[in-house]
Amino acid sequence: MKIAVDVMGGDLGVQEIVAGAAMITKKSDIKVILVGNITEINQALLQLVYNPAHLEVVPAETFITQDDKPKEALQSKARNSIALAAQLVVEKKADAMVSAGNTGAVILAAARQFNRLVGVRRTALAAVYPTEQKHGPKGDPFALMLDVGATLHVNAYDLATFAVMGAAYARVISSNTSPKVALLSNGREASKGAPEVVEAHRILSQNSAINFMGNVEGLDIPRGTADVIVCEGFLGNVALKMLEGVSEVAADLAKDAYTQKFLWRLGLTMLSKGLHQLRTKMDWKQYGGAPILGFDQVVIKAHGRSNARAIRNAIKVAAKAVRGGLTDQIREGVSSLNTEGT
Amino acid sequence: MKIAVDVMGGDLGVQEIVAGAAMITKKSDIKVILVGNITEINQALLQLVYNPAHLEVVPAETFITQDDKPKEALQSKARNSIALAAQLVVEKKADAMVSAGNTGAVILAAARQFNRLVGVRRTALAAVYPTEQKHGPKGDPFALMLDVGATLHVNAYDLATFAVMGAAYARVISSNTSPKVALLSNGREASKGAPEVVEAHRILSQNSAINFMGNVEGLDIPRGTADVIVCEGFLGNVALKMLEGVSEVAADLAKDAYTQKFLWRLGLTMLSKGLHQLRTKMDWKQYGGAPILGFDQVVIKAHGRSNARAIRNAIKVAAKAVRGGLTDQIREGVSSLNTEGT
Repeated sequence: MKIAVDVMGGDLGVQEIVAGAAMITKKSDIKVILVGNITEINQALLQLVYNPAHLEVVPAETFITQDDKPKEALQSKARNSIALAAQLVVEKKADAMVSAGNTGAVILAAARQFNRLVGVRRTALAAVYPTEQKHGPKGDPFALMLDVGATLHVNAYDLATFAVMGAAYARVISSNTSPKVALLSNGREASKGAPEVVEAHRILSQNSAINFMGNVEGLDIPRGTADVIVCEGFLGNVALKMLEGVSEVAADLAKDAYTQKFLWRLGLTMLSKGLHQLRTKMDWKQYGGAPILGFDQVVIKAHGRSNARAIRNAIKVAAKAVRGGLTDQIREGVSSLNTEGT
Repeated sequence: MKIAVDVMGGDLGVQEIVAGAAMITKKSDIKVILVGNITEINQALLQLVYNPAHLEVVPAETFITQDDKPKEALQSKARNSIALAAQLVVEKKADAMVSAGNTGAVILAAARQFNRLVGVRRTALAAVYPTEQKHGPKGDPFALMLDVGATLHVNAYDLATFAVMGAAYARVISSNTSPKVALLSNGREASKGAPEVVEAHRILSQNSAINFMGNVEGLDIPRGTADVIVCEGFLGNVALKMLEGVSEVAADLAKDAYTQKFLWRLGLTMLSKGLHQLRTKMDWKQYGGAPILGFDQVVIKAHGRSNARAIRNAIKVAAKAVRGGLTDQIREGVSSLNTEGT
């Protein structure tokens, strides 16, 4: 099991990403291929403990920044670290790729270098987010939402495909054998929502391979009523960012309370253990990154702000997806959709 | 100043709504016309102190429930309390209407009995919601979002009209002379979002009557970066319900903490004053209800769960909207849009 890791585009620098990859080499049988600036990688490795038998380096001459325009950057920056990591996967030198870089560039590189699975018209970016209710046999306090990739104009079949892909991911990664899948709409009734949502509801109701619970509303996102929530990318993007905003606001309020009032401060000190749990739960970006689903290869997009631990988790998730046969599961699900549903 | 109040459809019953209206008659020059079942109204009034010179009753034979289908109910239930309240406004016996009843029925009754203002192609349901940042000269901890009415397929001109209507409402109700208006999108740049959002950005950038700050993202909803956020109704509906969900989850967590752990309990008792503030802020439904904007009359939809205080606030807001010339301000704004913008 080898994972190609783009070490360049993360907000916290090469050191942090290399550190996450180094952790993995010590404590698992997963091997990593670090892709990026060779000088920076070597400098980072000097300060780290790692298993050299589990670590390779592939030098990339250029890299794409978070501010680069994906299309132009992929064109002008030949042999950039994202494209090279994808190439290692295509050439079967790696089993999957992980990048904390420019999201648009990762998606576009995957679209150019990988194939979409048969029957997948649109790929989707999925994200885990914290919920009140627990999920799956391990009681994860996280659910999955897709598409959150800001794409527009999905049709009913695309939404049904997202449902299949999200269910497959929850099965493989959360060991949830029958994840509850829901469509995000403005009401529970089958008739609620845009025409494509209503039609997707019909398709999914007829599909026996998916545990489809029907429509859920905005309320259900933080509650965690569903294990997998399916929606158009524009809506999912706004909803996910809103959730980040709410957690930031809560953190700000807690900080204010710390500095402002003595009684609050006293109360909060006593609460600090609980608050720490809450904050850890809110800082959900450390939990394994966001898969880009629908390609014939496994691609995990780690958050730009990922620290070493988050990168280690993303690499683990990538390996788990490969081992669990994620792409095959999606392939089968999509095929059942085409036989039974539409 | 007379406000027609539908006393029937609220979740807490006739007593609660009549109580809210009774409050107003004692402490202001606003007169109310209670529309609904005469027996229930009289029974409610027996237990209340009110100023009879400021209170009339108009009997309605039927009423529409929260579960009724709006179109069919308006057809089959002649002289229902919502339609009658609207009729009082049309006949100039009342200056505005307030209802806590079935949202769809209120919107549909308004659409049938009132006129859309010239230049308004789509009316919008607006809602106030709590934010971290304060707004306007009074430092309101609330911003306005519209459309939240779950309607689909708006065009750029509709979004621009929503911006005009939301700005007018913030000016009149929050005394905010130059409210910051933003479009909800998946990025700050003018090029981000659906084609209608991109085009609305262009129209609003050219309009001198609106303090247009550009696009905001999901993150900005809880932060409160803008005073008025404009979006398609489906997106607004999901976002608003999600915010309700987050506040419910936070309340649940607090309740859990109360019952579970001694240290938490101790800390929370000390924090209780602060928590009470937070909870009050979260229970923002008591703040004046949701205006339906774009008609030639003022219509305020109070939340179904409104208590007496919430109803009193909704009546006050309706009176303020009439006095502040809300419909004229919208008319002017829309006309500037047609001259300058499109």
